[in-house]
Formats: sequence, structure tokens, C-alpha cells
Amino acid sequence: MADLTKILLDESEMPTSWYNIVPDLPSPPPPALHPGTREPAGPDDFAPLFPMALIMQEVSQDSYIEIPEEVQEVYKLWRPSPLFRARRLEKALDTPARIYYKYEGVSPAGSHKPNTSVPQAYYNKMEGVSKLTTETGAGQWGTALAFACALFDMECEVWQVRASYDAKPYRKAMIETFGATIHPSPSEVTEYGRKLLADDPNNPGSLGIAISEAVEMAAPHPEIRYALGSVLNHVLMHQTIIGEEALKQLAKVDDTPDVIIGCTGGGSNFAGLTFPFLREKMAGKMNPTIRAVEPAACPSLTKGVYAYDFGDTAGMTPLMKMHTLGHDFIPDEIHAGGLRYHGMSPLISHIYELGLIEAESIHQTECFDAGVQFARNEGIVPAPEPTHALAGTVREALAAKEAGEERVILTALCGHGHLDMAAYDRYFSGDMIDYDYPEEKVRDALTRLPQDL
Amino acid sequence: MADLTKILLDESEMPTSWYNIVPDLPSPPPPALHPGTREPAGPDDFAPLFPMALIMQEVSQDSYIEIPEEVQEVYKLWRPSPLFRARRLEKALDTPARIYYKYEGVSPAGSHKPNTSVPQAYYNKMEGVSKLTTETGAGQWGTALAFACALFDMECEVWQVRASYDAKPYRKAMIETFGATIHPSPSEVTEYGRKLLADDPNNPGSLGIAISEAVEMAAPHPEIRYALGSVLNHVLMHQTIIGEEALKQLAKVDDTPDVIIGCTGGGSNFAGLTFPFLREKMAGKMNPTIRAVEPAACPSLTKGVYAYDFGDTAGMTPLMKMHTLGHDFIPDEIHAGGLRYHGMSPLISHIYELGLIEAESIHQTECFDAGVQFARNEGIVPAPEPTHALAGTVREALAAKEAGEERVILTALCGHGHLDMAAYDRYFSGDMIDYDYPEEKVRDALTRLPQDL
Repeated sequence: MADLTKILLDESEMPTSWYNIVPDLPSPPPPALHPGTREPAGPDDFAPLFPMALIMQEVSQDSYIEIPEEVQEVYKLWRPSPLFRARRLEKALDTPARIYYKYEGVSPAGSHKPNTSVPQAYYNKMEGVSKLTTETGAGQWGTALAFACALFDMECEVWQVRASYDAKPYRKAMIETFGATIHPSPSEVTEYGRKLLADDPNNPGSLGIAISEAVEMAAPHPEIRYALGSVLNHVLMHQTIIGEEALKQLAKVDDTPDVIIGCTGGGSNFAGLTFPFLREKMAGKMNPTIRAVEPAACPSLTKGVYAYDFGDTAGMTPLMKMHTLGHDFIPDEIHAGGLRYHGMSPLISHIYELGLIEAESIHQTECFDAGVQFARNEGIVPAPEPTHALAGTVREALAAKEAGEERVILTALCGHGHLDMAAYDRYFSGDMIDYDYPEEKVRDALTRLPQDL
Repeated sequence: MADLTKILLDESEMPTSWYNIVPDLPSPPPPALHPGTREPAGPDDFAPLFPMALIMQEVSQDSYIEIPEEVQEVYKLWRPSPLFRARRLEKALDTPARIYYKYEGVSPAGSHKPNTSVPQAYYNKMEGVSKLTTETGAGQWGTALAFACALFDMECEVWQVRASYDAKPYRKAMIETFGATIHPSPSEVTEYGRKLLADDPNNPGSLGIAISEAVEMAAPHPEIRYALGSVLNHVLMHQTIIGEEALKQLAKVDDTPDVIIGCTGGGSNFAGLTFPFLREKMAGKMNPTIRAVEPAACPSLTKGVYAYDFGDTAGMTPLMKMHTLGHDFIPDEIHAGGLRYHGMSPLISHIYELGLIEAESIHQTECFDAGVQFARNEGIVPAPEPTHALAGTVREALAAKEAGEERVILTALCGHGHLDMAAYDRYFSGDMIDYDYPEEKVRDALTRLPQDL
């Protein structure tokens, strides 16, 4: 087994439960608060947005939740996903490190996102919901939800950040291929969108704005619900199938990670790979360093403040305690990759505060350098998001070389870049410049956070 | 095993030889002819274009040729590829047929093409060639050769049909990500390109023209060789690993195909899946109907003439006896999908004349109907090329339903459509119209074929 290029699992070895890390943590994460009363939000406060099954998962104290059979059947279209040993990249870096990458780009949507879009569609369908609304930035999540809705015969309506909508026409075509409707955000379809467009017809949009539009469309209609692609506990939990598989796969080649590296935007892909390993670490069975890598242009974890903030720009969602750049954050146009959400998942924020994980931010040209080096050696063209994890991996592999150590690095290749080639084009044309999100913008945003918490 | 969604093989089960169908045929295919002397072309006539190892494969009488270890190592980045049972599509069609599809879109280039680009790069490298040139239409082949050259540290220069180059900027970025150079064809880089542009600066290009440019650049330089992505015997042979794997995979679920359906442009993906099954059929071990599906807009097999013709537009390549629409064929702009070569592989043409396979042509809207239906049920968005095979598969599955028969259909899903979403966009916007290649154009092209053969 030890000389395999890719380590596969049979369908019969696919995990049948998701892992909920909350009960294993030394202290519970702070609760979400009702946006009006500022009291801890109960299940009823989430009911206008999500079906009860997902709300119960959001607050669950069970360590494992069984994956419904219908969801497992869909997962089998691409799962278990392969774990690769990056032999060619190791050779190119001339490193003694062993590099493994867990590849989620084999999913029909091309990323890890269907791991949660499929159960979200399923649970909504079970509760009689006929239509889901959502936001999307780069487009991975909108594609994944459209795919899931197609399989469960549901309607799907997507608001895509206008800057991305205009720059990536192929995303629209892919989302329409799966039968969904897509709007640029801000749009004329919602009250909030119309208000923003009246103020500025050229508003480039943001994830926070798109969330506000999708929520506005869902909340008043019992047959319509909203689906979020990251950030929340239940979303992170659905992604843990990635790490559960990776644990089995590394056991097959008798290896244990010294360092685990994932990229973070909202945090779901990072959590999906690392939480099952963090469980093993907390149980004293292994001791990997676990590191989040985020863009220097959107550094919520490394430069944001840890405070209660809204999940959306209009202030319609419950308040969550998280590392945030402020809910009115609009990413600089300079930033080419994804990972542009103003906040970090409250659960990851809490775990970061507990000192269980590390974080670093990296400039985009270093990320694309790593992405191109990876493509030319391993063949897969990564999405801009996981180039952050790859840049962190290259740093670690070179540090291992410097130290003369056989470090085992595990990284999350959460998607391919086929629909993001415009970002590579920008990189090759030399138009890509680096950008550090300014400290004073963070201080300024702080003044607009809810102040009484 | 019988209820699997995807049937996988271990790396240890990957075939280690390619299959050469030529010695098993009841009669040999007609030889290629030298373009000047019109005498049968010998190895030396191919030497300006190809390395000797590939020329020997082109004329080989051995039934099996071992896959070099270095090529097997690269294949393992994505091979063995999965065979899927299309359960959701079967259900949507309400058919008693069992539908299997062999999916080649898992390769880094997203299609079956790396099965041959990798050995082609390898054999050239072994003979001291430092650079490969080629043509590409939709871009699948150019991407695959760029990928292979990256892995073997070779230069790569690609001429892409200008109409596609302009319509598909992401292909350029992907080819550049793999480190290759790309030109629109006709280009100012070659004498032939300059001549065509002088006549018509808006020449949209064709595969035949792009081949002429790539050949012109390679032939005079011993360190540069040319690589072709389909049509030739050795290319088809490299693809037989698809069918060899599918044979093993169907055996695992104890099933035997009644009908095998693949799309044809130059013929390599069709040959790759079907030749190993044709061997079994000729040996009396099974009796599948084998059917090629081609676009009604480029119907070389069903409407072309079986005659000696050039492989390129300028008349620089050896003459090959094949079903052809004429070497000066330029595809109508109406046609959105790939599969636009003027000729059919001489080997497939010969096998068709022997009556061992069937062929049909299908309009593009029926193909995209099938592609969208497939995506909404199976999740994978197919490239425009295999939507032809899918349309043929849907026809067959509905015929099985009509007849009340449990037919087993095997089809070739040779690539995904992530970089071809503009074609889907055209389909959804209602701008896609059907087109039959006119008989009189074929008759007219006939007058410009070499007349003395």
C-alpha cells in the first residue's frame, strides 16, 4: 500500500455519521443572539430560515449524527473522495516531507460544498419546503446548492455577488444547467437590493448583501427556506465526512499527520478536514499542528476582532460571536480568489480562542505561485481558495527541508479551478497585486458593530 | 457488488498494456500514402513529425504493447477511472435498461485525451525531443498535451482554432497554467497562417488549418515534433485502456453490454472504449451492437465519402483513406460542440466499412437536451462532445422501454463541460439552432480530393 499515488476507499467504507465537535470541546461556544432582543436565540428564532432538523443539528450535543440513507446514496456519486500522495510536488520541492492532499474537486459541483448542500436540500424536502434561496460569491456554493436541488426536485434561487457574476459568466451557465435561477446581487428582485441600487447603481455587492437578499426572499414564505454554505455548526458538521475519510485513508498507508493545513473563508472546508483529527488530538491519540490559512486581503481570523456581529449586511440574521471584519465589509476588487466573507465561523473562532488551532494570512501572488506549481506537478488546477492551503503547505514543506525533518503534511484541496480561470489569467498577465487589509478599516468597522454586547 | 453506484478498480488492477486491434481484423486497413509520391508511406515519411517509437506503434502488428512504467505512474494520477451505473437517469427515463457510463472527466485535463498525450510526451522525451506542437479545437486536446508536457518538463506550443480561441478564454488560461504557449489559428507565426490571414484577416480557422500550422513549425526542426490528439492508429491504441478497464469493471458486477455507444469526431474516445469489446465480439465471447454518434453538422462517417484525403488543409500530411467531408472543411459557426474534424480515423472508417460498427448523426439541441437531463440526474455536466453519446443512449434506453427489454447500455462520458459552459449558455438562451451539413457541400468537396487514387 505504501507506494500508492491515490488512496481510495470502497463505497462500503464511506463514513455513515457526521462528527459534531461541540461536546468534545473544553468549553461550549457562545450562543447566537436574537438580532432584536439580543437574548440567546432559540430554535424558533431560526425557524423562518431553516428546517427544524437542521436547527436541531445546529444546537446538538450529540457527538455523531447519522447520515440519512438518501444522502448517502447521493454522496456515492463521488464519495469517498481520493486522498493523494503528492509525490511529484515533493520531488519538485526536494523536501523530506510527505505531502498528502484530500481532493474534493471530484464532486459534480467541483468542490466540497455538496457535502452540505445535499443534506440541506434533503432535510428541507422532508419538511415540505419546495424552494431554497442562497447567496454565492465565487460561485462554488451556488453551483453546489443548484446541484442538490436538482437531485431532490426542488426550486433554487441564487444571488451571486455582482462583481463575480459579471466576471464569471460560466458559473451562471452551470447553475442554470442544474435548473436554478440566478441573479446578480444587489438585485432589483428584493427590497434591500433595490434600496442599495438606488443609492449606488454600481454597487459591486458582497456576500453579506447577497445573504440579506436571499434571507429576505425566504423568511416570509413557509414553503421557501434559506441555505447557508459555511459558517454555521451544522454546515461544518456535514463537512466532517472529509476528515473521517482522511483518517481511514492515512491509516491504510500507516501514516499520521504532523501538520494539517486548510484554507478558511467561512471555515467549512477547514473544519471538515480538521475536526475529526482535532478529536483524535484532544483524545491524545495524535498531536498534529492544525493551521488555517486565509487571504491577506480578507483576514478575519488573524486581523478581525472577536465580537458579536451580524451574519449579513442588512442585520437580519441572528448575532454570532466570531472573528469579524465588520458586517458591512466589501472585499477589495484587487482580491482574485474566494474566501471573502466578513466573519469566521463562530465555532472555529471559539476553537481558535481556545488555542487549539493556529492561523496565518498569505498574499495572493504567493498563493497562485503555489497553485501553478501544484498544477504543473500534480496535474490538478486548484480553485483560488485552496491555493491558500497549498501556499501554506509549500511553506511547511520547505521548512521541513530546512530542518531536515520527515514531516507529514495533510492538506485540503477543496476544489478545482476550472470555472475560475479568469483569476489565473490575471495572474499570468501580471495584473495581480498584493494587498493587506488595512488595520484602520477594521477599527472603523468596529464602531458599527452592535455596541451593547 | 451489484448495487454499487460507481465501480472502481485498484491501482493494482490498472491494465498494463494497450490493445492493438489491427491484427485481429478480418482484413488490414489501407495504408497511408506519401503526399508527394502517392506510394505507401514508410516509417521515414512520418519521421519529421513523430518519434520512431510512435511510428512503430502506428504500423505495429502486435496485439498488445506494454505501457511504460513512467506512463503508468502518471496514469495513476487519475486512473483507473470510474464506471458508473446511471441509476438516477434510468429512473428519470423510466426504462428497464441498465445504463453504465465510463467517466474520463476525472483526468486533470478533464477528458480522455491525457491517455494519449502522456505516452506521446514520454516517447518524444525518450528520443530527445524538447518541444511538441499541436492543434486544438474546443481545447480538450491542447489542455491534455500541455498537461503532459508539464509533467515531462517539455515545451509545448498550441494552435487553437480562432473561433474557439475567441469564444473560450478559459482554455487559454488553463493551457498557460500548464506552462504551454497558445496562438489563435490561423496565426502570424507560420507561413501558412500568414498566407491565410492575408487572404482573409477574419478567417475563423479549422482543425485542418491548425494542424498545418503545427506541422509547419515541427517538421524542419529535429528537436520539435508534432502530436496529434486523435485519428491515428497509435492514438486510438493508447485510448484502449478505457475499454480494458470497463471490461474488468462490468465483470465485477457480472454484466455484459448489449449496446455500446460513443461519440466520434476523430474517433479516439469511441475506439478507446469499444475496441476491447469488439475484440471480445470478434472472438464470439459477447455480441454487443457498437454505435458511433456524430454531429449532424459534421457527419463524416454517415455523410462523408470513403476516399484518400489529407489530414490537414495545406496538404502537408500523408494521405489517409477515411470518411471525409474534404480537407478544406470549415465547420459552420452554428455548431456549438466539438467533434469538428473533416475526417474520421482511417481505422474506424475501415471497421465501419467492414460492417463491425454502426453510426448515426444527431442534431445538437437533442444532444444538449440529453446533456442537461444527465446533469440534473447524475450531477456531472458533460462536455458537448459526449452529449452526442448521451443523446444516443437516451434514444436506446427509450427504445428498450418501448420494447420492454432489459437492455444493458454502456456509454463513454469522455469529459466534463466546465470549460465549455458558453455552449450551454447558447442552449439556454435559445440561440442554438440545428443544422444538417448539406449534401452538395460534400459533393463539391469531393472535386478537391486527390483525384488519381
